[in-house]
Amino acid sequence: MSNPFFINSGPFNISEILKILKLKLKIDLNTSVKDIKDLFHADKNCITFFHSKKYSEIAKKTKASYCITNQNLKDYLPKSCIAIIVKNVLISTSLVTEKFYPNSIEDEYDATAVNIRDTTLKDIVNAGKNVLVGDNVKIGKNCLIGHNSIIERNVQIGDNCKIGSNTILRNSIIKDNVTILDNCVIGKKGFGFFPSQNKNLRYPHIGIVIINENSEIGCGSTIDRGSLSNTEIGKNTFLDNQIHIAHNVKIGENTIIAGQVGIAGSSIIGNNVKIGGQAGISGHIKVGNNVEIGGGSGVIKDIPDNVKVMGYPAKSIREFLKDNR
Amino acid sequence: MSNPFFINSGPFNISEILKILKLKLKIDLNTSVKDIKDLFHADKNCITFFHSKKYSEIAKKTKASYCITNQNLKDYLPKSCIAIIVKNVLISTSLVTEKFYPNSIEDEYDATAVNIRDTTLKDIVNAGKNVLVGDNVKIGKNCLIGHNSIIERNVQIGDNCKIGSNTILRNSIIKDNVTILDNCVIGKKGFGFFPSQNKNLRYPHIGIVIINENSEIGCGSTIDRGSLSNTEIGKNTFLDNQIHIAHNVKIGENTIIAGQVGIAGSSIIGNNVKIGGQAGISGHIKVGNNVEIGGGSGVIKDIPDNVKVMGYPAKSIREFLKDNR
Amino acid sequence: MSNPFFINSGPFNISEILKILKLKLKIDLNTSVKDIKDLFHADKNCITFFHSKKYSEIAKKTKASYCITNQNLKDYLPKSCIAIIVKNVLISTSLVTEKFYPNSIEDEYDATAVNIRDTTLKDIVNAGKNVLVGDNVKIGKNCLIGHNSIIERNVQIGDNCKIGSNTILRNSIIKDNVTILDNCVIGKKGFGFFPSQNKNLRYPHIGIVIINENSEIGCGSTIDRGSLSNTEIGKNTFLDNQIHIAHNVKIGENTIIAGQVGIAGSSIIGNNVKIGGQAGISGHIKVGNNVEIGGGSGVIKDIPDNVKVMGYPAKSIREFLKDNR
Repeated sequence: MSNPFFINSGPFNISEILKILKLKLKIDLNTSVKDIKDLFHADKNCITFFHSKKYSEIAKKTKASYCITNQNLKDYLPKSCIAIIVKNVLISTSLVTEKFYPNSIEDEYDATAVNIRDTTLKDIVNAGKNVLVGDNVKIGKNCLIGHNSIIERNVQIGDNCKIGSNTILRNSIIKDNVTILDNCVIGKKGFGFFPSQNKNLRYPHIGIVIINENSEIGCGSTIDRGSLSNTEIGKNTFLDNQIHIAHNVKIGENTIIAGQVGIAGSSIIGNNVKIGGQAGISGHIKVGNNVEIGGGSGVIKDIPDNVKVMGYPAKSIREFLKDNR
Repeated sequence: MSNPFFINSGPFNISEILKILKLKLKIDLNTSVKDIKDLFHADKNCITFFHSKKYSEIAKKTKASYCITNQNLKDYLPKSCIAIIVKNVLISTSLVTEKFYPNSIEDEYDATAVNIRDTTLKDIVNAGKNVLVGDNVKIGKNCLIGHNSIIERNVQIGDNCKIGSNTILRNSIIKDNVTILDNCVIGKKGFGFFPSQNKNLRYPHIGIVIINENSEIGCGSTIDRGSLSNTEIGKNTFLDNQIHIAHNVKIGENTIIAGQVGIAGSSIIGNNVKIGGQAGISGHIKVGNNVEIGGGSGVIKDIPDNVKVMGYPAKSIREFLKDNR
Repeated sequence: MSNPFFINSGPFNISEILKILKLKLKIDLNTSVKDIKDLFHADKNCITFFHSKKYSEIAKKTKASYCITNQNLKDYLPKSCIAIIVKNVLISTSLVTEKFYPNSIEDEYDATAVNIRDTTLKDIVNAGKNVLVGDNVKIGKNCLIGHNSIIERNVQIGDNCKIGSNTILRNSIIKDNVTILDNCVIGKKGFGFFPSQNKNLRYPHIGIVIINENSEIGCGSTIDRGSLSNTEIGKNTFLDNQIHIAHNVKIGENTIIAGQVGIAGSSIIGNNVKIGGQAGISGHIKVGNNVEIGGGSGVIKDIPDNVKVMGYPAKSIREFLKDNR
């Protein structure tokens, strides 16, 4: 899926990229680099990054022409890929991403937004008072948008969607038959940055939020967009009120998440999962299909398919009940 | 209390109701059914539902003329009540409720809402900028409503109430001297539906929210309306910020609930209860009077009167402290 | 720092103050009392209060001319300070504070707020649609304010700040380079009151919120102002979404707090602290510098510097992992 939200300022000459990284390499400096992508999605003339041995299998097969990495990892890369050795892979990746996507660091309000009544969308959308829409917003048939909601530029909304009041949509693609209730903020940048004394270094978020068909998002929920990948909510997945979904999270289909649950960055939740109220899922966790997570649980490691867990840290529900008789 | 929010589309002939349920019964098909109510509130010519043995004592005395139930439960019903045997009592009840109250499934924004300055309420209410009020809203003496708040149709607000900014009130009755702070959403439908692959089946929420005298609701809180019964907050009960109260919950008087607490559907909280921050109460739980629940607790079973609990799962605070020395 | 938000209605004759407390004392009734302050900040002609032995060292040195206290504590006070003995120190303090600061009990919406386009700030600030600003708001250079946000009277915002959409700022001082995202409520009164049957007694909140340079506050967060002291967020401290910071809390510099964390009233968090998602900190807790608190933890006692904790109640992370192998 092409990303209509963050415009690539490239291509750049590799010499320009090495300049940002304050590096000098004995390579052909006149080659053009067209984009930055992850190891899997990068193709020829792209630059990628490789910061953890966990990704060595994907690294071996990357089609990228350049890869930001470190001394220990460089030998996993294929010969077609030139290693760019740096001290801190993620900070360097951040700097290069910012070069390609300068508008992805900060979330400034959409200055192109105007009252929907002053746009051609007024004839298509059943909208409340003071609804603002930005440039190039696309909205399908038979949609409702409540009062005071803000649909920022380039957002796409499918058919038969219901957006509540006081809700903000940004950098998001909403498929058909989706309901988003009041006071939500969907698509802001994630809570990702490099901690640094006096001034933390924010990193770019060029991912978007995709909410698939028939899903519902409760009041006061926040869904952050991804950094390099997307945040995605599967089909027919229902979220209750005051839920927080961090950047890069992927949630499967037919999943049900009760109120005040939080899912930290980059975690993956399967299909047909049930998560009880106030449960928390740590970052970079994988929760399988058909899993049930009891209310209040704290999930700090992967959960295989078809398992019921509860507790903090979460364990099998049988064990939890036995321990707490 | 009559319900000004959801208009009964009935009466319907019992044959029309059997048609929705795809049933054929050998009964008089020309009888008129005026409403759907719970076992206790239903009277003659009403239809009710009975799905759990837990309610058998009430079922024995119901005055309803018809009852949606199953084979195992039907014999508890009095002779005056015709059993309508179905596979899934709750789904069937949902379909029949939707027939009577077609507008109770979805929460569409209130298209009747206009700026309060364009209504006669402007002379009665001290209102901020961009305040929207729907048809037939009633507001008492000496009330304030902050900027950008939305009071949807038929909402009733008593005397001396203070409503914050960016707050949405819907399907709610607010008694005298109530304070509701900013960014709240009060009265949306609950998170209740029948899970189903590809398309969950939402069930009707014809209950309302009642907030009684002298109570206060903190910023960013959500209080969902009930499905068949109401969600109710007792007199002089104070809720802090970012609290979530699910559908059908009843909270007593003089109760104090700290920030980020969540109370799941249909739980009942007594009078003079204190609940610490971030505690969670599971659904269908009964918490007695004068109970203290420590911050962060997870309450998964009933708590009798006059008890102090803490922990996850919550146990007596003495035991909790002993176990965690 | 002077407090531009709550105007002192004093000075009052000490006889007027004794009248509120329904007390008769054999002291010079014609002396003027200029303000109410805490034991440390009070100077000559001020009244202060002293309710716990914990503060006896500060009490011994207070410069206040009068002190609301009880029989057991009065002997700690210096001779220059006249003890005013009451049954309930905090309730009496509340009544006297209300006398000096009558507008600090309730948070009424700012009726002075008008569209920023109708003010001289329009030439200085890059503001979205429907932005409201109250009287005497000060905003520095190069700031952005998103749609529908409300900046209430006397709020001060430094240079290079970014305020999101649908956000409310009240009784707050925002320093340079601060980012506050969407749907926040900053500076409302804290959840502090004296519980009482039928009608809780709210106490005054004359503290403010101070957010220092380079900090960031995530979407849907609430930061309450202090009662007698301020609520303060240190420099370069980042808060994620849906965080609740209660009244009087002080958070240090370079601290990172993940989503849905709650910090109860009067707690103090050090510098370079990391707090994982959904963790809760009880009230009146002191968390040292360089502390790491795992996600979901419940902190119910002080944590010294340089310690990693996790669990509910929080303990050393080593112990937590050992107990949960």
